[in-house]
Amino acid sequence: MRTGHSLAFQIFEDVTSEIRIKSVREDSDEVKDLLSLYQITSPPCSPFHMSWEADSDWEPENSDEVSKGECLLIPIPTNASIGQLIRSVGYAEQERATANYEILGDGTFILTTEYGQSIAEERIWFVSENVRCRSSVIKTSGGSGILQTSFASEVRRVEL
Amino acid sequence: MRTGHSLAFQIFEDVTSEIRIKSVREDSDEVKDLLSLYQITSPPCSPFHMSWEADSDWEPENSDEVSKGECLLIPIPTNASIGQLIRSVGYAEQERATANYEILGDGTFILTTEYGQSIAEERIWFVSENVRCRSSVIKTSGGSGILQTSFASEVRRVEL
Repeated sequence: MRTGHSLAFQIFEDVTSEIRIKSVREDSDEVKDLLSLYQITSPPCSPFHMSWEADSDWEPENSDEVSKGECLLIPIPTNASIGQLIRSVGYAEQERATANYEILGDGTFILTTEYGQSIAEERIWFVSENVRCRSSVIKTSGGSGILQTSFASEVRRVEL
Repeated sequence: MRTGHSLAFQIFEDVTSEIRIKSVREDSDEVKDLLSLYQITSPPCSPFHMSWEADSDWEPENSDEVSKGECLLIPIPTNASIGQLIRSVGYAEQERATANYEILGDGTFILTTEYGQSIAEERIWFVSENVRCRSSVIKTSGGSGILQTSFASEVRRVEL
């Protein structure tokens, strides 16, 4: 369950989605290709594939384009608490993106992605073994204007 | 703007509300009275009064009861990063409640309140000078069942 808040217009968007996360081998071709695109030689750590299908209470014009997607994500740890996350497709804007992550003392994962026109800050934290929360804030690239926030409550189903 | 997610039923509740926060003198009668109810002798720090009026997209039966409220809150710091927060009225259940707070390295404020039947964990963090996010999770008192989550995007208006 995910909800977006458009602050300027006080508009809510409620979305239910299915997200699939699968680990990918570190020596697979798609991982090697994406790393070489970014000219990264540091070793990747637990790359994974994410795909999603969303059902929104809005009826967007290009619903096919908005409602599903997939990307490859490759963490490149600098140390145990910070690193980079390379994605094949960005979140706020449809382009490849490099993000910096930080893991706080209580395990909260904070991801900051700078795009051309905006900065996205995402937070992920587990509230129980199988429930995690994820918030995101989209700021103008200057950093002071908050365009939109969103919050997701995600329940894990382990596929055997 | 606040949204509640009921996980078991996949139901969204979208709410707009006005929250008023006013500081209260540490030596005022209401502060002294609440501290003595809890038999607390440690000095309070920046007590404040909070009142709210909410407009929900649900039509609850007792709308008057649900849609507004107020309480007195008294922080009792143990040190710079942890302490207790005394409230005149609880959040998840309508009773007086003592909560423990913690301030993470990046300034995120985490508040944990144990009620008879449930535990509420709230997080507050500023995403810009005048916009803060607030999430809450209501767990069963055992801690493993997640009943409900909510997320608020709050814009500060300073009254002169």
